[in-house]
Amino acid sequence: MITYDFAHIDGSIYSYLYTCIKNDILSGILKPGEKLPSKRTFANNNGISTITIQNAYDQLISEGYVYTIPKKGYYVANIEGMTRSIPNADINYDIRIPIRESFEYDLSSNGVNPDNFPFSVWTKLSREVMSNKKKELMEISPTSGIRLLREAIANHLKSFRGMLVDPNQIIIGAGTEYLYGYIVQLLGNDKIYAIENPGYRKLVSIYKQRNISCKYAYMDDSGITVEGLKESKADVAHICPNHHFPTGITMPASRRYEVLAWANAAEGRYIIEDDYDSEFRLEGKPIPTLFSIDECEKVIYMNTFSKSLSPTIRISYMVLPVHLANEFYKTMSFYSCTVSNFEQYTLAEFIERGYFEKHINRMRLYYSKQRRRIIDKLEASQLKEVCEIQENDAGLHFLVRLDTNQTDEFVISKFKEKGVKVEALSDYYLTEEKEKQHLFIVNYSNLNEEKIDDAIKIIEETVSGFRRC
Amino acid sequence: MITYDFAHIDGSIYSYLYTCIKNDILSGILKPGEKLPSKRTFANNNGISTITIQNAYDQLISEGYVYTIPKKGYYVANIEGMTRSIPNADINYDIRIPIRESFEYDLSSNGVNPDNFPFSVWTKLSREVMSNKKKELMEISPTSGIRLLREAIANHLKSFRGMLVDPNQIIIGAGTEYLYGYIVQLLGNDKIYAIENPGYRKLVSIYKQRNISCKYAYMDDSGITVEGLKESKADVAHICPNHHFPTGITMPASRRYEVLAWANAAEGRYIIEDDYDSEFRLEGKPIPTLFSIDECEKVIYMNTFSKSLSPTIRISYMVLPVHLANEFYKTMSFYSCTVSNFEQYTLAEFIERGYFEKHINRMRLYYSKQRRRIIDKLEASQLKEVCEIQENDAGLHFLVRLDTNQTDEFVISKFKEKGVKVEALSDYYLTEEKEKQHLFIVNYSNLNEEKIDDAIKIIEETVSGFRRC
Repeated sequence: MITYDFAHIDGSIYSYLYTCIKNDILSGILKPGEKLPSKRTFANNNGISTITIQNAYDQLISEGYVYTIPKKGYYVANIEGMTRSIPNADINYDIRIPIRESFEYDLSSNGVNPDNFPFSVWTKLSREVMSNKKKELMEISPTSGIRLLREAIANHLKSFRGMLVDPNQIIIGAGTEYLYGYIVQLLGNDKIYAIENPGYRKLVSIYKQRNISCKYAYMDDSGITVEGLKESKADVAHICPNHHFPTGITMPASRRYEVLAWANAAEGRYIIEDDYDSEFRLEGKPIPTLFSIDECEKVIYMNTFSKSLSPTIRISYMVLPVHLANEFYKTMSFYSCTVSNFEQYTLAEFIERGYFEKHINRMRLYYSKQRRRIIDKLEASQLKEVCEIQENDAGLHFLVRLDTNQTDEFVISKFKEKGVKVEALSDYYLTEEKEKQHLFIVNYSNLNEEKIDDAIKIIEETVSGFRRC
Repeated sequence: MITYDFAHIDGSIYSYLYTCIKNDILSGILKPGEKLPSKRTFANNNGISTITIQNAYDQLISEGYVYTIPKKGYYVANIEGMTRSIPNADINYDIRIPIRESFEYDLSSNGVNPDNFPFSVWTKLSREVMSNKKKELMEISPTSGIRLLREAIANHLKSFRGMLVDPNQIIIGAGTEYLYGYIVQLLGNDKIYAIENPGYRKLVSIYKQRNISCKYAYMDDSGITVEGLKESKADVAHICPNHHFPTGITMPASRRYEVLAWANAAEGRYIIEDDYDSEFRLEGKPIPTLFSIDECEKVIYMNTFSKSLSPTIRISYMVLPVHLANEFYKTMSFYSCTVSNFEQYTLAEFIERGYFEKHINRMRLYYSKQRRRIIDKLEASQLKEVCEIQENDAGLHFLVRLDTNQTDEFVISKFKEKGVKVEALSDYYLTEEKEKQHLFIVNYSNLNEEKIDDAIKIIEETVSGFRRC
């Protein structure tokens, strides 16, 4: 007969009894097949209620430690190997997380200075949304995103990009990477995807990680070449014709028509037009998109709020040609939209009420001042003698050619020693035969005014240091 | 010599000039190779500044309409086919979007009544986050999610599920569907994934859409069977052992060990444990997870805030065994986290400050009242004669067996006519040989008290209607 000490219980009797019996089963004191005392006997022997014992038995049954034979009673189940006890301490495993090195002066990546994010408007709008749209916030968003946001984006594309699109052509997702996943499912993962060389290495990772054939097509001064596309035998060209990263090349109209002609020359060919930073084309009118001049439904347009608002708000979108939009809704409507309703509605208000336009104008002015400052400082420094600035009046970066005999790796390592992170154009060549152009990328979105001044000084010292060696 | 009328310009001269020249090139008035007037001549002839002309020429050059030969001048580029003008009207294409039928009484899907979402706390916390964490909100989140949220989830798992996990084992993503994508990349898309039959049809769509081999393994009263897994030749079992949907089955401990033994019997076998509604197990202690009793790093645990908070806040997470966590960080750290920082920090505060626990307790009480009410109403109605309620004291639904000779399809169509959406268990059989059990799913998370009363009345009428036929 099993007995437990019920005198010093800290908590419910039911829970205590459950734990005692479970431990006895786990430790083998109670053997498989052994009959447990009836509820009545157990209750009488220990001076507790039968209900309490019933509850404990029920719990043990539901977890499989005990089984019952009707009219006969309760028996210990056969639990092999159930011997592990959970340690009562914090766990700290040896998980090796890649550490992002942090630099005092980061000229390599985009970032948003917290002073530049429109916190007060965003806070106001999100509060309004939570107060006025309770019902809508709880209603499941369509796969493509909430209608209001897609309408706001369609209006934005019309006034900013001269693009006329049906809001139903717009698909919203948590980042362009996520949308690439949709595209691959839509166009086929047996297709060959070509990206620009030099180009964005992350795209290679994204395609390769999904076991998708990813080729490189070489560029010339007008952007990706049709010869390169043909050599790659690509079905899908994934390109940034409006402002290529990192070269800054804007594809001229004649090349655009050549690339569209390439897409039209065979069935199943498509172009993914990544227009990631069109909002920050700092001078002149924006270039019409490939999507706008495409008459044959061959172009998928992509854009993101990562650059124009913040990379930490994960909202991107793509515009599908009509037949692909229909295909999307037919085959992929089972997916849930990956962006929270709360942020979809907040962003919709942000765009519709004109705050987005104001924000872009403010940021464009800010970045053009930053650009001017950094170029002026460069030209006023001794760097002028050994640097040639290559401007493409667009985006948040420019290129600098450095007159040196050192390798790009050496230059980068010297900067790194001084806390300056810089990337070389050669890092963006995806094939082995990198051109040694000594071209370095200067991305100024992360630096405020003070930092620009300091960075230029440090770069000047560093360069004069290794040029003397 | 080209001349334009500058007398009646509405807007900037630069923009007007740009448009005039572009249109003349597009319409063929200016021929490819034709020399454009020099800036000085053009300016003198029209009484405008050379800067304005320079700007217009620059824009035309950047778009490829014009090219320049240094020291010689500006020439018209060869633009073939550039004849399309953009219509100036709203676009409304024939895009067929699947329409979600709406029902007065929806017993089929989960939803959150806006009255139950903790709007005031959520608004307060998100405002605080936006005011106190400006810097952190702008810093790119690690792929796995921000550390604070992963710590909060680790603490929650410890106190609610008795699970001890390192926050670095936790990976946050915008919905479980997104995380399945990670898992497939981690375990391999050449593997065979088995799901429970009956089971969640959306999983089939998700795997098939990615061209992944997806098999069905049959269940018995203890959940998925090892025989079924073996027959399916699966490498990965995707299961809901803690509360299977829709049968409500909780896998007993003995079967858990059998399934773990299956996973241990061959290399590369894994179990995905979907614990989607454990917070709402309404009675008894929660069952320990498979993850907790797994000693061989074979179980990936998944959970979501869709059920416990709202499906419209897209935050889910998975807990990887240590070796898979290391593999994840090694091969997939290039991905961006799909959840916005704003909501990650808000949720972290919500959990850490105890609001989540309070919310769950409140909702558990609410749902158990709803459940009691609907069962009491059912048993007090004439439905009692023809219905048998199958309870599994868990989750947000139960099953009802209806005594009828009609097919499930007929029953469902009759309910539909009356505005009641009900699903049959047979709809969840993924193979052809459905069992005709006349079991229907009653999900009560969408109904408030009034609606419960009305729904029961309508169900009663409907059933008596077709039983009389």
